Amino acid sequence: MTDKSSAFALIEEPLLDLAALRADTPGCESVIHFNNAGCGLLARPVLRVMLDHLTLEATIGGYEAAEHRAAQVRDFYASIAELIKCAPDNIAFAASATHAYTKALSAIPFERGDVILTTRNDFISNQIAFLALRKRFGVDVVHAPDHADGGGVDVEAMVDLMRAHHPRLVAVTHVPTNSGLVQPVAEIGRHCRELGLLYLVDACQTVGQYEIDVAEIGCDLLTATCRKFLRGPRGSGFLYVSDRVLREGYEPLFIDMHGSRWVATDRYRPVESAARFEEWEFPYATVLGSAAAVRYALDVGLAPVARRTPALAARLRDTLAELPGVRVLDGGPNPAALVTFTVTGWERDEFKAALGARRINSALSVREFAQFDFGDKDVDWCLRLSPHYYNTVDEVDEVAGAVAELLGGRR
Amino acid sequence: MTDKSSAFALIEEPLLDLAALRADTPGCESVIHFNNAGCGLLARPVLRVMLDHLTLEATIGGYEAAEHRAAQVRDFYASIAELIKCAPDNIAFAASATHAYTKALSAIPFERGDVILTTRNDFISNQIAFLALRKRFGVDVVHAPDHADGGGVDVEAMVDLMRAHHPRLVAVTHVPTNSGLVQPVAEIGRHCRELGLLYLVDACQTVGQYEIDVAEIGCDLLTATCRKFLRGPRGSGFLYVSDRVLREGYEPLFIDMHGSRWVATDRYRPVESAARFEEWEFPYATVLGSAAAVRYALDVGLAPVARRTPALAARLRDTLAELPGVRVLDGGPNPAALVTFTVTGWERDEFKAALGARRINSALSVREFAQFDFGDKDVDWCLRLSPHYYNTVDEVDEVAGAVAELLGGRR
Repeated sequence: MTDKSSAFALIEEPLLDLAALRADTPGCESVIHFNNAGCGLLARPVLRVMLDHLTLEATIGGYEAAEHRAAQVRDFYASIAELIKCAPDNIAFAASATHAYTKALSAIPFERGDVILTTRNDFISNQIAFLALRKRFGVDVVHAPDHADGGGVDVEAMVDLMRAHHPRLVAVTHVPTNSGLVQPVAEIGRHCRELGLLYLVDACQTVGQYEIDVAEIGCDLLTATCRKFLRGPRGSGFLYVSDRVLREGYEPLFIDMHGSRWVATDRYRPVESAARFEEWEFPYATVLGSAAAVRYALDVGLAPVARRTPALAARLRDTLAELPGVRVLDGGPNPAALVTFTVTGWERDEFKAALGARRINSALSVREFAQFDFGDKDVDWCLRLSPHYYNTVDEVDEVAGAVAELLGGRR
Repeated sequence: MTDKSSAFALIEEPLLDLAALRADTPGCESVIHFNNAGCGLLARPVLRVMLDHLTLEATIGGYEAAEHRAAQVRDFYASIAELIKCAPDNIAFAASATHAYTKALSAIPFERGDVILTTRNDFISNQIAFLALRKRFGVDVVHAPDHADGGGVDVEAMVDLMRAHHPRLVAVTHVPTNSGLVQPVAEIGRHCRELGLLYLVDACQTVGQYEIDVAEIGCDLLTATCRKFLRGPRGSGFLYVSDRVLREGYEPLFIDMHGSRWVATDRYRPVESAARFEEWEFPYATVLGSAAAVRYALDVGLAPVARRTPALAARLRDTLAELPGVRVLDGGPNPAALVTFTVTGWERDEFKAALGARRINSALSVREFAQFDFGDKDVDWCLRLSPHYYNTVDEVDEVAGAVAELLGGRR
């Protein structure tokens, strides 16, 4: 539990001009958006870039508009490189984080008996992808155990598994979608580097919420979406590919005329950069909107965002934890801005709808999304509330008050 | 060669209110858009749907906006089902036609020695995907020969190859991107059905230009983009999956929480419909824009479009063919609305730019995009002009006149 007064001190973040940031966010006027772990609210400049580009496409043509905005398109790569501290050539656009993730997986020529070492809290779609690889190629999927207290993966045990199996791939989700648990990705990364293991990190819930440094994490591949804490458009994600992986010649299973040159009727040659993992067709309005969102995040400043956002969530979590009928589910020492909890006396859809009727946006997580984690916690569903830096302390308290009222009404 | 007077009769299409259709197309005011084989011009209602949805996302949240527009999202499937004559459950959204194509390929558990039978005019990215499958899994890629006159694939020879190799997959591009050649996909399909062969058709350049009936084609899988002759947004395509393929349990190599249920920690179950081939994250504004574009195409009427569009191209092609210094490259009896030709005395980028300076949108095709076809034709590049039904006879004549002038200036 965070001490409330210290959390409050962090929330008062002098580097953020909250009034201006909220004025820049049309959604702040109509909803209390605590569903940033689903999809963050677009800032006005990001929306404008997208509307402008679609209008330009309608005016001069889709290819012609892309040519016209070539410099801004390049900033997609430059801005993300700045965000996660690498070179633009290490970044590939993807239509979603899952698309980026499966592109990365597809680059590994798995063979029967290869081991994928992962955690019990990796994202559902990643877990299903591992099972699909098991089905098709006979790989073994090994899950490192968690600490007994629910505080995330037991790194020591995981390292033992690394030594025992020498896995073809180590895959860790930084923060799962089903709780605020933060996994020690950099600590795991150090062991992967020492042991020479290929390391893939899913940073979907952490880009835009924390400062991310791929060298510090020590990953070979990292995937993320632009729509969550980066506040970018839907249908946008990216893949980071390290120089080492590029140099070693990894290429996605399916590569096209953008990722390679068709140099002779029977031969193609992958391009040098991470563009190897991209496809020829781009949703340019979305790419430009994503670049604008990343620039916006960089301008706001990731350091103050990383202080304020989890602190707002901590205040909410602590307040909810004191309510009778609420069970907070987030494990680990310093959870991220995903507050997950169960309530007694309500059906899941009904509870979410009751909050929605008070203009409070939230999300549901169900057992199927987190077979290991919800099995361990013995819950069938939970509500997820995920504030962001542009939310206010008043909103946090209003949401906590709404939950209290809804529960009180059912007692 | 088409007889000009009969082509002109077809162009005067009483079922199309051209003035209204052009008024509905903002781009008609600013450009002569002969790059529809690249990307068609958005109609006003399509643009409006997209701008509205992005604005709604910014106002109430991305997930919340998608819920709000659930019925319109469903119309993506219903409208495409109507377009290509199947059921909505046979349709999967994809971020591009290539994405749809590789999803389809990924569902086939290729083994060493399996044969992919294709043509010399299949789309570059498909050709590269086949070579990537050869590299990874040791499949053999066999190209059916063309007729000696350049009129497309020799079906009789292709059927001999079907009988000789019993290919794991037959893959044909309906109209390649590098010429107006129309391949006899339905004739090939009849043979695939007789021989029980899996048949994949790339209809990227034909949906929205012709009436497409998947049963008539006899394909198991068909892919297309929404951005070309369907006049939908960039970043949008679809995959048709036949009932038979679904029933036989084909699933893409990578399947996620949308395409399957994670029913136990070590097991997932693919969903029944073609949604199996989709990913969880959707660019909803793009999906809605695509649905609006398909509805628009259905309202305009594919029958008159399929009469007028290739007829406009035929007029252009015939006029260009008579110019000294022009060599028209499109083979086959009734080419589609892709007019490809070489010119003497100009560099490729310079020629395209000279047309661009006259507000004429065009595209270049280069040797690398069509290693077989351009090898056979012995050309390094060509210009591609692709009108659509909303273009006018005056525009056709203006473009032909511009080419004549540019060539005349260099003689």
